[in-house]
Amino acid sequence: MKTLGPETIEQRLLALARLTQPGSLGVTRLLYTPAWHDAQALVYRWMEDAGLCPWWDAVGNVHGRVDGASETTILTGSHIDTVVNGGAYDGAYGVVGAIWALSHLKQRPFLRQSVEVVSFCEEEGSHFPITCWGSRALMGEVTPGDAKTICDPDGVSLRQAMDAHHLNADKISEAAKDYAAFVELHIEQGPWLEAQGKDIGVVTSIFGQERWTVRVKGVSRHAGTTALRDRHDALIAASRMVLAVQDVANSSEHIGIATVGELHVIGGSTNCVPGDVVFHVDLRAETDRVRQRLAGQLTHHFQQIAQSTGVTVAIEKNTDERMVKMDATLQNVIAGSCRSQGLSFMPIASRAGHDAQIIGRKIPTAMIFVPSHQGLSHHGEEYTAPEQLQRGVAVLLQTLEQLAQGLPGVGQDQSFATPNVLPGRWFG
Amino acid sequence: MKTLGPETIEQRLLALARLTQPGSLGVTRLLYTPAWHDAQALVYRWMEDAGLCPWWDAVGNVHGRVDGASETTILTGSHIDTVVNGGAYDGAYGVVGAIWALSHLKQRPFLRQSVEVVSFCEEEGSHFPITCWGSRALMGEVTPGDAKTICDPDGVSLRQAMDAHHLNADKISEAAKDYAAFVELHIEQGPWLEAQGKDIGVVTSIFGQERWTVRVKGVSRHAGTTALRDRHDALIAASRMVLAVQDVANSSEHIGIATVGELHVIGGSTNCVPGDVVFHVDLRAETDRVRQRLAGQLTHHFQQIAQSTGVTVAIEKNTDERMVKMDATLQNVIAGSCRSQGLSFMPIASRAGHDAQIIGRKIPTAMIFVPSHQGLSHHGEEYTAPEQLQRGVAVLLQTLEQLAQGLPGVGQDQSFATPNVLPGRWFG
Repeated sequence: MKTLGPETIEQRLLALARLTQPGSLGVTRLLYTPAWHDAQALVYRWMEDAGLCPWWDAVGNVHGRVDGASETTILTGSHIDTVVNGGAYDGAYGVVGAIWALSHLKQRPFLRQSVEVVSFCEEEGSHFPITCWGSRALMGEVTPGDAKTICDPDGVSLRQAMDAHHLNADKISEAAKDYAAFVELHIEQGPWLEAQGKDIGVVTSIFGQERWTVRVKGVSRHAGTTALRDRHDALIAASRMVLAVQDVANSSEHIGIATVGELHVIGGSTNCVPGDVVFHVDLRAETDRVRQRLAGQLTHHFQQIAQSTGVTVAIEKNTDERMVKMDATLQNVIAGSCRSQGLSFMPIASRAGHDAQIIGRKIPTAMIFVPSHQGLSHHGEEYTAPEQLQRGVAVLLQTLEQLAQGLPGVGQDQSFATPNVLPGRWFG
Repeated sequence: MKTLGPETIEQRLLALARLTQPGSLGVTRLLYTPAWHDAQALVYRWMEDAGLCPWWDAVGNVHGRVDGASETTILTGSHIDTVVNGGAYDGAYGVVGAIWALSHLKQRPFLRQSVEVVSFCEEEGSHFPITCWGSRALMGEVTPGDAKTICDPDGVSLRQAMDAHHLNADKISEAAKDYAAFVELHIEQGPWLEAQGKDIGVVTSIFGQERWTVRVKGVSRHAGTTALRDRHDALIAASRMVLAVQDVANSSEHIGIATVGELHVIGGSTNCVPGDVVFHVDLRAETDRVRQRLAGQLTHHFQQIAQSTGVTVAIEKNTDERMVKMDATLQNVIAGSCRSQGLSFMPIASRAGHDAQIIGRKIPTAMIFVPSHQGLSHHGEEYTAPEQLQRGVAVLLQTLEQLAQGLPGVGQDQSFATPNVLPGRWFG
């Protein structure tokens, strides 16, 4: 473990953090932008230095690999894109940590199964209105048609943005690949591990999530000459809807989280009554049933508000991800790795979405969390202490090694395809 | 009046309307943009065709002139900039109408006083955070320093934008000029003339107006992992403030109008709790006392909302225009012109701001309104019927002619400087 010193992991995270859109607070590295390209190129170089024979796939994911006796492959990794003004750890930690783990596996004289690291091109959905573009491509879930129709706010399509990086959207399907299992290392992004004083979180499930685009249409009129009673003010209506989002989440007895993170007054001027507002809703819940209930309540409130304020509202669902359970056998391997290293750990449900959510629907998947200081994430001051970063990497390495040496069931029989065992059973 | 046929006025307004930023709904012609330049160049050509010997002044106002026996000059005109997605009549009508009026005055064998038409470069404040840039320059109220410090949302200064049109910001003071009186022809932009079935509105006063930039600072955090109770959500706070703006205006027993026409979530992402929101308040009232009272209430509400939602709020006042009364003698001349042409008219207070508000603080000023269909303005469907446009132009021509022929008092003694007579006295 000596070469996995905390300085090195930290240093690489800081090196990546410097690759950001000029002028942004924190780190802003959006899909298919210059900063994004520089980051993937740096990741490629690190893989090369570790002898992992890296390659770019059809959508811009960067892969590296340690070959085992079998072609059956265990996958690890995370994403290097960020939100606007994000932090240095979200995603990047799982990439840097995985490269280090593979650089150690590379030294092993014999591996039964192959191990691959991936640096996903995109997960956050901060540039184009789609999340997990990289892992969806890996699972064969996106098409050249998607690349043509999905556009950023400036009207640039994914296809056009890919062109600028010499990625051919017609070849997207070539990114799809089969794996036996996926393990993602990530910061928690919430406050629970720190609050409980635990080193490691073994993820049991990932909250379902939906994202809506809500368009409110009123009538743009002169702000001075239009009496309040004659207005169809799209921003007044939208403001009530924003507050309704909070109220609905607050009223749930089960865990439901709802946020409006973006709102645009289209063509607004200080001296005009706003006629056109677009905003985005992010809705998550601990079960799909709770989420569907909250979504129904919200839709009802939006329609009522539209009616009472004399505007129209149109709701479009961009993302609709079901809750995904992590694989029970993999959770056991991670828990065993923690125990053998004397680390404290706890089961935890992830309220954040991850590439593991896309991949976990198809193959056995697990996640390893390390604590986030004060739960702060999607923020420039996101922080995890070096020794905690190291603990996570050590658990990842041991987990991958056990899987690569052929833990019974992994990549060999159908046990992963059976319904997942509820967490708790294996937590002492 | 034959050459003032409604087709011609309409045709010119439609010609100007075609000079708009590509892709905008309605007309978008912002200060110092290509569409703006094309419009002023077209106005220049019309003035040339009418024999008005046009010239550009130091800030990009375009002037034309009919010389009288005296150098004492009566000014008329309006602005050719628009709001984003505005209409074809706001401002443009007063410019097109004034050129036509001067083209007729040009045919008169003798004028005692000179008459000048101006096409102001800017009034709306839709590109840079200052209104009435053109008329302020004419009144000597802006400096080269203002041009350096006032920047658009992209950080481009007025000076830089002027440079692109070969206008030297160091020479701004050369735009300042003396006039004996100002008469502005404009669409009403409100519903009152149409509702009362009147041809002409004789403006008695212009509402005072202030514009605020309000900055709300919370903490940007992950939308999935941050519990509702741990949030400092700048958009939740701003939404409450937007609703408070409406409530405060509604609660006033006197006429107070308050609007939030623009709101920006800075660096927002769908999956982030917003940490930073900027919005703009437009506040107007029938008296300065009412406006100050509403401003005080709003400030108090904003601070209370900030405290209860765990954010901070900073209010910056960009514009603070006192209520301005129109000159009583000029109102009488306009009313007389209406009577002699058999047109119905009524006194009306302007709830919209105008260049006449800037100029009226220094020299005798009046405004002539024509009806706006359904009171719609700052909107692509803004409309005034051709025959109504012609009535306004006819009243402007007769008013200017009377003033140019030396109505007792105009430009000769101090009667305009005395306190204005309250409206009503001269309305039969």
